[in-house]
Amino acid sequence: MSGWLAVAGLGPGSDALVTPEVCTALGDATDVIGYAPYVARAGEMTRAVLHPSDNRVEFDRATAALRLAAEGRRVAVVSGGDPGVFAMAAAVFEALEAGPEAWRALDIRVLPGITAMLAAAAALGAPLGHDFCAINLSDNLKPWERIETRLRLAAQAGFAMAFYNPRSASRPYQFARALEILRGELPGTVPVCFARNVSRPDQTLTTVPLAEATGEMADMRTLVIVGTAETRAVGRFLYTPRRAT
Amino acid sequence: MSGWLAVAGLGPGSDALVTPEVCTALGDATDVIGYAPYVARAGEMTRAVLHPSDNRVEFDRATAALRLAAEGRRVAVVSGGDPGVFAMAAAVFEALEAGPEAWRALDIRVLPGITAMLAAAAALGAPLGHDFCAINLSDNLKPWERIETRLRLAAQAGFAMAFYNPRSASRPYQFARALEILRGELPGTVPVCFARNVSRPDQTLTTVPLAEATGEMADMRTLVIVGTAETRAVGRFLYTPRRAT
Repeated sequence: MSGWLAVAGLGPGSDALVTPEVCTALGDATDVIGYAPYVARAGEMTRAVLHPSDNRVEFDRATAALRLAAEGRRVAVVSGGDPGVFAMAAAVFEALEAGPEAWRALDIRVLPGITAMLAAAAALGAPLGHDFCAINLSDNLKPWERIETRLRLAAQAGFAMAFYNPRSASRPYQFARALEILRGELPGTVPVCFARNVSRPDQTLTTVPLAEATGEMADMRTLVIVGTAETRAVGRFLYTPRRAT
Repeated sequence: MSGWLAVAGLGPGSDALVTPEVCTALGDATDVIGYAPYVARAGEMTRAVLHPSDNRVEFDRATAALRLAAEGRRVAVVSGGDPGVFAMAAAVFEALEAGPEAWRALDIRVLPGITAMLAAAAALGAPLGHDFCAINLSDNLKPWERIETRLRLAAQAGFAMAFYNPRSASRPYQFARALEILRGELPGTVPVCFARNVSRPDQTLTTVPLAEATGEMADMRTLVIVGTAETRAVGRFLYTPRRAT
């Protein structure tokens, strides 16, 4: 059997949110590559050789995966959530472009997964029920000024927003600055939702008005959803109506 | 057993993309409600009573579902894709807000699914690999002027974009106008991808440069993805790099 590479999304955490397509790929794989916590999760669904690696080595990991597939191995590169949303798929194509021409003939597939923002939205109700955007607040790979401009334009456009990687030990201040920018554009009543460990037993959901949101409310494992001026509460749920004025 | 209501996402079409969580809910349901084609799909996974309805009656359908759940039935409201993305979840909360106070105590859950934009992106490579937005181009429920402004701001913000419901028989011209707006803001080389029947045997993917995209290339069943000025092609794939200048 010839080699292949599947970039597989494991969803937000619960096994009940892993697609059958991903389960099949993990079952057929000879090798599983990824950030250590995701490889550990995948390890429960496969008998493949496990290749855990550190965070922030996406390009090297993708190159190693392509090399194995070129040698005839059946390789699953695992991501949390959806591999196409701030995860491993783009890194695999960057490594493909940088690698030998022959790699472009490899059997490469991206297997979608439930991304954190959609799992968090489902747990909250339907805060992304109207037009929305997804922004990675990490400035490791893009200038912070560009993120600021994007936040301003997104708020002016009336998008609901999901923020990935809002804050980390090495970037403690950016999320507070992002909130400041949003407060300059949106009513203070707009809900800001902090979702952690979505779909897991230790899931937590916290919602505060924009006026009361602070930088310390998020960390690297928090998914933040910001509603619009039209987002409403009903019972324990939040939703953004389909109808807009 | 007391009643409940689950708003369940069936994903883009392939059974391999339906989550185990949704399968379990369909198996436990006594009633399945939704737009007829989705109810027909769900019918293969359940022995529940099927309540198919027409398109564009989302609010009435949601009200009927809540009424059944209040009577003690176990009700699955089915959507294609993810119920929180331009689908039934928002309609259920609108109906909940408009209905009797007692309904707010009902056991209501939203079960996420693979939304069309993420399945299409996976099939194309990783065109949404950087910050992106999702816009419903239908002006049935919002003024077209607001959509135009949103498109302009989204392009200026440098978002990759996914368009749901780009064009229908009753709205034949809006998508062509949307392309015109994008051409005023973005280089003509930006890729525009048309995805139909994603994850099904008759899936088609077509990519053209923005300068060559025309309104007729989309219909109501097309999911459109627009890359950014940084989106690249490698082999048969498109991806938007994680690194941005």
